[in-house]
Amino acid sequence: MVKLVVAYKKPKDPNEFERLYQEEHLPLAARIPYVSKIGLGKVAGTPDGSPAPYHRIAELYFEDAATLNKALGSDEGQKAARHAVEIATGGVDMIVVQVERDS
Amino acid sequence: MVKLVVAYKKPKDPNEFERLYQEEHLPLAARIPYVSKIGLGKVAGTPDGSPAPYHRIAELYFEDAATLNKALGSDEGQKAARHAVEIATGGVDMIVVQVERDS
Repeated sequence: MVKLVVAYKKPKDPNEFERLYQEEHLPLAARIPYVSKIGLGKVAGTPDGSPAPYHRIAELYFEDAATLNKALGSDEGQKAARHAVEIATGGVDMIVVQVERDS
Repeated sequence: MVKLVVAYKKPKDPNEFERLYQEEHLPLAARIPYVSKIGLGKVAGTPDGSPAPYHRIAELYFEDAATLNKALGSDEGQKAARHAVEIATGGVDMIVVQVERDS
């Protein structure tokens, strides 16, 4: 199992980002094929109170790396990835993780 | 549900980090109380081939923020957190995330 971690840094206008994320991005992301599981979460802070490096973290799980590549290469995957970059006015990190445990 | 995301940046000596992580850190982390679920994963890269900002990402899930604070404040939580910082020669980000979906 692998996952694509999509980590959004703090956007310039967090309220507008939230609106675009919920109203536009999630419906686009829901159309990406071959997704086994989705993780969505909003950053609440850090244990020591220092500024968090991200605003939101989303995770898309796939059976393996080949399936992830097929999904990201699809029209729906490309469209959702472009939209993520477009709304991420603070920047976005996309990271592929080999999942060793999820239980 | 909340989770603590522990994101290790690239350590100075990745092989030595892996050894300390597997042999010392995971057994310490396994003793942290109140953990609902654990996610472990090794960063494989990024979709566009740019350098990934992290080497490993671990996630500890808890029922709620109060439980997470209780766990991190415990002797076992403190010990594991100190050890994480100690072995993270490239630095480590700890981020608290309010989980909205995990399915």
